[in-house]
Amino acid sequence: MRKSKKLRVGLFGFGRTGAMVTQEMINAPDSELVWVVRKSNRHAGEYASRLQGYEFDEGMIHWVEDIDQAFFVRYPVDVIIDFSASETVNLYKHAADLGIRFLSAISNYSRDDLAELKKMARKTAILYSPNISIGVNLLLLTSLVVRSVIPQADVAIMEEHFSQKPDISGTALRIAKKLKVKPEECVKSIRVGGIVGKHEVLFGLPNQTLRLTHESINRGAFGRGALAGATWLMECERGFYTMEQLLAVRFRDALSELR
Amino acid sequence: MRKSKKLRVGLFGFGRTGAMVTQEMINAPDSELVWVVRKSNRHAGEYASRLQGYEFDEGMIHWVEDIDQAFFVRYPVDVIIDFSASETVNLYKHAADLGIRFLSAISNYSRDDLAELKKMARKTAILYSPNISIGVNLLLLTSLVVRSVIPQADVAIMEEHFSQKPDISGTALRIAKKLKVKPEECVKSIRVGGIVGKHEVLFGLPNQTLRLTHESINRGAFGRGALAGATWLMECERGFYTMEQLLAVRFRDALSELR
Amino acid sequence: MRKSKKLRVGLFGFGRTGAMVTQEMINAPDSELVWVVRKSNRHAGEYASRLQGYEFDEGMIHWVEDIDQAFFVRYPVDVIIDFSASETVNLYKHAADLGIRFLSAISNYSRDDLAELKKMARKTAILYSPNISIGVNLLLLTSLVVRSVIPQADVAIMEEHFSQKPDISGTALRIAKKLKVKPEECVKSIRVGGIVGKHEVLFGLPNQTLRLTHESINRGAFGRGALAGATWLMECERGFYTMEQLLAVRFRDALSELR
Amino acid sequence: MRKSKKLRVGLFGFGRTGAMVTQEMINAPDSELVWVVRKSNRHAGEYASRLQGYEFDEGMIHWVEDIDQAFFVRYPVDVIIDFSASETVNLYKHAADLGIRFLSAISNYSRDDLAELKKMARKTAILYSPNISIGVNLLLLTSLVVRSVIPQADVAIMEEHFSQKPDISGTALRIAKKLKVKPEECVKSIRVGGIVGKHEVLFGLPNQTLRLTHESINRGAFGRGALAGATWLMECERGFYTMEQLLAVRFRDALSELR
Repeated sequence: MRKSKKLRVGLFGFGRTGAMVTQEMINAPDSELVWVVRKSNRHAGEYASRLQGYEFDEGMIHWVEDIDQAFFVRYPVDVIIDFSASETVNLYKHAADLGIRFLSAISNYSRDDLAELKKMARKTAILYSPNISIGVNLLLLTSLVVRSVIPQADVAIMEEHFSQKPDISGTALRIAKKLKVKPEECVKSIRVGGIVGKHEVLFGLPNQTLRLTHESINRGAFGRGALAGATWLMECERGFYTMEQLLAVRFRDALSELR
Repeated sequence: MRKSKKLRVGLFGFGRTGAMVTQEMINAPDSELVWVVRKSNRHAGEYASRLQGYEFDEGMIHWVEDIDQAFFVRYPVDVIIDFSASETVNLYKHAADLGIRFLSAISNYSRDDLAELKKMARKTAILYSPNISIGVNLLLLTSLVVRSVIPQADVAIMEEHFSQKPDISGTALRIAKKLKVKPEECVKSIRVGGIVGKHEVLFGLPNQTLRLTHESINRGAFGRGALAGATWLMECERGFYTMEQLLAVRFRDALSELR
Repeated sequence: MRKSKKLRVGLFGFGRTGAMVTQEMINAPDSELVWVVRKSNRHAGEYASRLQGYEFDEGMIHWVEDIDQAFFVRYPVDVIIDFSASETVNLYKHAADLGIRFLSAISNYSRDDLAELKKMARKTAILYSPNISIGVNLLLLTSLVVRSVIPQADVAIMEEHFSQKPDISGTALRIAKKLKVKPEECVKSIRVGGIVGKHEVLFGLPNQTLRLTHESINRGAFGRGALAGATWLMECERGFYTMEQLLAVRFRDALSELR
Repeated sequence: MRKSKKLRVGLFGFGRTGAMVTQEMINAPDSELVWVVRKSNRHAGEYASRLQGYEFDEGMIHWVEDIDQAFFVRYPVDVIIDFSASETVNLYKHAADLGIRFLSAISNYSRDDLAELKKMARKTAILYSPNISIGVNLLLLTSLVVRSVIPQADVAIMEEHFSQKPDISGTALRIAKKLKVKPEECVKSIRVGGIVGKHEVLFGLPNQTLRLTHESINRGAFGRGALAGATWLMECERGFYTMEQLLAVRFRDALSELR
């Protein structure tokens, strides 16, 4: 019998982002990190919480090669969050039958693996968002509603990142696509110093401007976003959801209070 | 018989703001400024368009002392826009029976005059917004939906205006009220140089920030906002509306396309 | 005998920018606009001050075709400010012998006309600045000194202007040149709505950023800048100066007080 | 005989800031961290580099209770950097005779301890800066020179920090003092979320604004600033210096190249 009402989370991925996500999850009061699966077998059997300096046990580390179907039955969770890699979906695709929900933050899915993820949505609720931070998705969604009110406004999207980041920000491209503006004309990329990540959507009218600006302080935002998404996902019917769809529900609720 | 499908507008107020509003209205292709009522009898009988250097007639100027009930019948309009003063409502309150809609941008109503305006809403559609610029209302409404999604975020509201502006911005106070934060703690007012007007709502989370920033370039924004508001008002049933309610309808439409 | 100690100014150019400059000069307490020379003979013999709604006489308007050498003797000024066109230098080049100083804000000089202006610098003090606003030159100069301290920082230059502005901002290009960075890599141009003009120089280091941002509210900045430049020019020996050189003198004075 | 030309550094302080400073120093190619002195005797005799995951030895850790005069002779350095506490000056005050230079970043000196530090300046070069980041000092110094050119501009200073930071930013107060504006009127403090640190100095003129904005990404900026300061300090005569004085030298050099 489950003793606590906390959201039980299983996590795939313990790399640079995964580790920060782990930390946020261990800190979060309303959830419990049941296990973490990592690519290497280093520290397998130990607790992620101990590795990060905490004095209690949370998030037992498992080696990915040890995962089979029985694993998901033996170590039950409410939701599985995936920050690892495209092919991982094949490890847990059959777990959809167990009533577990899934949240994937993989940014570079192969066509086949993404198809598998979508297939799982026939059986359970799936949230897929390559950028799971709440702030970035709020930026996207507010930009969308603003554009619907002032379609005549000119749009520019500026993104600033650390100098080594090679490509145009995927988030900026996604916003451009959603706003139906041409990235090659509207997106301006700045690469300087150690900027963690900043995105600005600028709407220009003849007499005024409106700027929506999201700035990342550190990668912990992914962990918080994943937990919020997972919480919202618990209330969803089976189906394939995006972060902005889940936010849109909250937007509509807020707007209906205005009536 | 009305020859054009243009929105026919009557305007009260020809002061500093009123004059800029007039200009925007004369420029707008989908509306016709039928008349302007001003406090002084200077240039009465002339056209506002001529005073502003145009080579055609639009917006005949009338002296406020000449306005009686017959005026609204003799010079029919679809909507009356009021940028003048609190007491003006008493001049046109009976015109609500004529099916005319009303948009008021008066910021300092007396209690009685505002009551009169609200009473008119039993007979026709009334839009009341002390700051009629679309951008400022978009700022308010996006702030509101963002706050509904991240109620745990800290909020700060910064407003910058020209050095002579004496009080805290009414718009900033209105945003604070809607977001249910204490103005004395959250609103920071900057008064320097000739800044036309800037409002920023900052949401702070542990790992990220979101800023929504509106900047006025000039007062023409009021004219454009009034026209947009008037256009939306034409579709409304009788009742008393705020600008954010009319925007909220557009927001909901945009959000439902996401499903 | 000259009765006042005010700076006596003659102005070439009465177009869109020239008219705003005129207004700033009429408003300025420490200078007197003696005359304005314009391309058309409209309003010749009238006062610029009257055209702009003032109740006193300042800035008699002359037609450019009426200007000969005698003009500069008959209507003496301390400094001639030129906002007109490249070829105008030929009208006043011999006036350098009269001890008059010259400030030119022409942005598109022909090679020959610029050579004439430089030749005049053997006889008097010439200030040449295609963008005469103090703020823009402060931006340039502070960027320059910052870069000298942190040459290792990455640099980006962002400029935002109204959507119709066709080319990359000349000011942005000038800053890039002074900072010795490649414009095609570092300058990002945004064109939206009615933005008057914004330039930002961003220095990025691994752990911090520094942004220097200039924003124009309206074109009156050129008038104020021209007057400040003219005032500083009065203290200069003969020679050919740029605005940033005159500012650099003030910077050095401020810095030496730190010792 | 000294084998390398690297700047040899000794560091007092190994707390939260000290640890990040240590890391920057270990990474820096032109300096060598010879030793670190910490308050606790934990890890004494080990290398700071090893504790931070490096595979080489740099920065042997000493317990503060073990420091006597002989220490500075036995473990010679070019410069001592102090990020620890007010009273530490008493530990090394006699080392000024050894030709070592000193850089102190202590923000809360007692009157007596600061007097000791100043007394040392009779014998060697001392750099004292409570905020040693280059960016913050560049912000201070550029603000100062800008103000000297446009003393008529209105000034506002905005600072944003994480919500738990209790007091007004010392840096903002220091800038206000240097610019001779009243902090209670000009400084606006924002406390939201996890903002590391942002300071903006805004100059407002009737037709334009100039903003100088420094943003911290993380505390590593202190380490880089300390190393830059220490390097500049090596060229200084004995005396008591501030960071802005050392920057001012570089500013003047840059400005003189404009002539």
